[in-house]
Amino acid sequence: MKKTTLPVGMHDKLFKRANVTYRIERSISDLLISRGFNRIETPTLEHVEVFGDEINNRHYHLFDKTGNLLALRPDITSQIGRVIASTRVETPIKFSYSGKVFHYNEEMRGLANELTQAGIEIVGYPAQEALQSALKAAQEALVASGVQDYQFEFSHASIMAVIFETLNLDEEQANQLAGLIRDKSITGLRMFTQANPSDLDDFLTHLPLLFGETETVLTEARELTQHPQILEGLDAIAELTRSVSDSLPQTTVDLAQLPTMPYYTGIMFKVFGDKIPDAFVSGGRYDKLFERFGAKELTAVGWAIDIDSVYQAIQDSIVFEGGNAWQSD
Amino acid sequence: MKKTTLPVGMHDKLFKRANVTYRIERSISDLLISRGFNRIETPTLEHVEVFGDEINNRHYHLFDKTGNLLALRPDITSQIGRVIASTRVETPIKFSYSGKVFHYNEEMRGLANELTQAGIEIVGYPAQEALQSALKAAQEALVASGVQDYQFEFSHASIMAVIFETLNLDEEQANQLAGLIRDKSITGLRMFTQANPSDLDDFLTHLPLLFGETETVLTEARELTQHPQILEGLDAIAELTRSVSDSLPQTTVDLAQLPTMPYYTGIMFKVFGDKIPDAFVSGGRYDKLFERFGAKELTAVGWAIDIDSVYQAIQDSIVFEGGNAWQSD
Repeated sequence: MKKTTLPVGMHDKLFKRANVTYRIERSISDLLISRGFNRIETPTLEHVEVFGDEINNRHYHLFDKTGNLLALRPDITSQIGRVIASTRVETPIKFSYSGKVFHYNEEMRGLANELTQAGIEIVGYPAQEALQSALKAAQEALVASGVQDYQFEFSHASIMAVIFETLNLDEEQANQLAGLIRDKSITGLRMFTQANPSDLDDFLTHLPLLFGETETVLTEARELTQHPQILEGLDAIAELTRSVSDSLPQTTVDLAQLPTMPYYTGIMFKVFGDKIPDAFVSGGRYDKLFERFGAKELTAVGWAIDIDSVYQAIQDSIVFEGGNAWQSD
Repeated sequence: MKKTTLPVGMHDKLFKRANVTYRIERSISDLLISRGFNRIETPTLEHVEVFGDEINNRHYHLFDKTGNLLALRPDITSQIGRVIASTRVETPIKFSYSGKVFHYNEEMRGLANELTQAGIEIVGYPAQEALQSALKAAQEALVASGVQDYQFEFSHASIMAVIFETLNLDEEQANQLAGLIRDKSITGLRMFTQANPSDLDDFLTHLPLLFGETETVLTEARELTQHPQILEGLDAIAELTRSVSDSLPQTTVDLAQLPTMPYYTGIMFKVFGDKIPDAFVSGGRYDKLFERFGAKELTAVGWAIDIDSVYQAIQDSIVFEGGNAWQSD
């Protein structure tokens, strides 16, 4: 049977799906190159150390023949951090990429363990300019892919950083808390704060409600905590969303947004579509990534777009007429 | 150090190399789709059984968490064989693809262990029509990539099949013989035939010289052996090269061509350029691939083009002016 069955999370793409996902990846890649983002290609295999100090059991690992532990890359941003920190690439610089990344989910519910991403990294530019440029490129990429309905949702990495640092939890408790935040479990968070009381109890128990229209949520949040780092994070969200209000008329916030990668240090954002479970785009500021590779801190902003989620959003609007459909539009 | 060094055979591509290799892959993919080849995407990871009955130590392997042995795909043709044999895809069908394949070379001389390929498979069509269509598509793909000088070189899988079946060697001897053939070692082959005599001694010791202008080589070869299967192979080469002589004026043969993959059953071909060590294109007929997956025998022809070899051939002719170079032509 193994000759004809696929490993968990691996899938074939045929006909319309293969054609249109190729086309989405190509449209975004071309757009980004045309906007001055230098194309970069990093390898599928890296030493595990590139992606973290500890072994992550949601990554795919293998030993090479000399005993080094390698990982199938779970993301490309860490690799670009390695490139910038270890080569003579001069900053400021803007990169764009597309390719496969791998996350090991064992569940049998049809999850994709191999994902196609396209993305950018803007490194060494002034932070506000870089953020605005990143958001503009994300919006243009969605439009180029044919996505009609999308919603930018902001948060700030310092909010979760303050919560987890203040509570100082062991790994199991930290995972439990992350799960309660992700599930927006009001009851769960109430019980959790009773067992682990802190200054942040008010903020934490209201966190599941702190999403929606930007000004309303920021005002509510400011009434729930006096923590200076959280307030700074809220101010940064307010400043950024004001500065992009012309180009992104409908922005929202979700202060319960958990960082998708551990390296975020500032503004984080996701872009969602109607009826699509996963975010189209995940991104943010991650100035400290380069320190991991022995280089100095650099202002950095990036995002990755999930090509398969974009496909889910646009597939019904595309008429596929076989192999020549590409030419017909 | 491991945080910033790359595993053996893994490389970053930056600036011109990244931009132009992207462009080559894109040009070929677009061309093939426009010619009616259905885009297909197969996963990076497969069960090892897809690629052969025995473990190949030139592949990358890993265990998944349930103990199944997986391989990073060394080629895509076997995967498409699996798709055709195990899904409801109807034949005849033409597929095109592009993506990464992985070969484990341990030598430290800068070899690439991750390769970018684009290619086609034509399955279930009459053999001569399929071969001609495959050769035409290969030529168009090279032209679309900007390759000016290229030479098609033909052989037939039955030649090597007859030699290795007749001599009935153990694995070590077979590897030794393959090495002597690959190196065109006249002395080595003379010694080998003395130690392993057979009806094919004359043919085998002259094999290193059996390359060049098609008619000359075929005439010479026919004088060296009476083996019916080899003669049939020579006839098939003659018939095909005659049928494509209008579109491919300069074809050559190299009867010492070893199959790049074990599944070839008929005509094999490679395309070489001046001063480029590796073939741009490797392809051939492989009707029996589907039987491995429990399906019936089907006429099949395919080829894969090595994007990095194409880059080597055209890089000097391309002026790269940074991130916007893509737009300027």
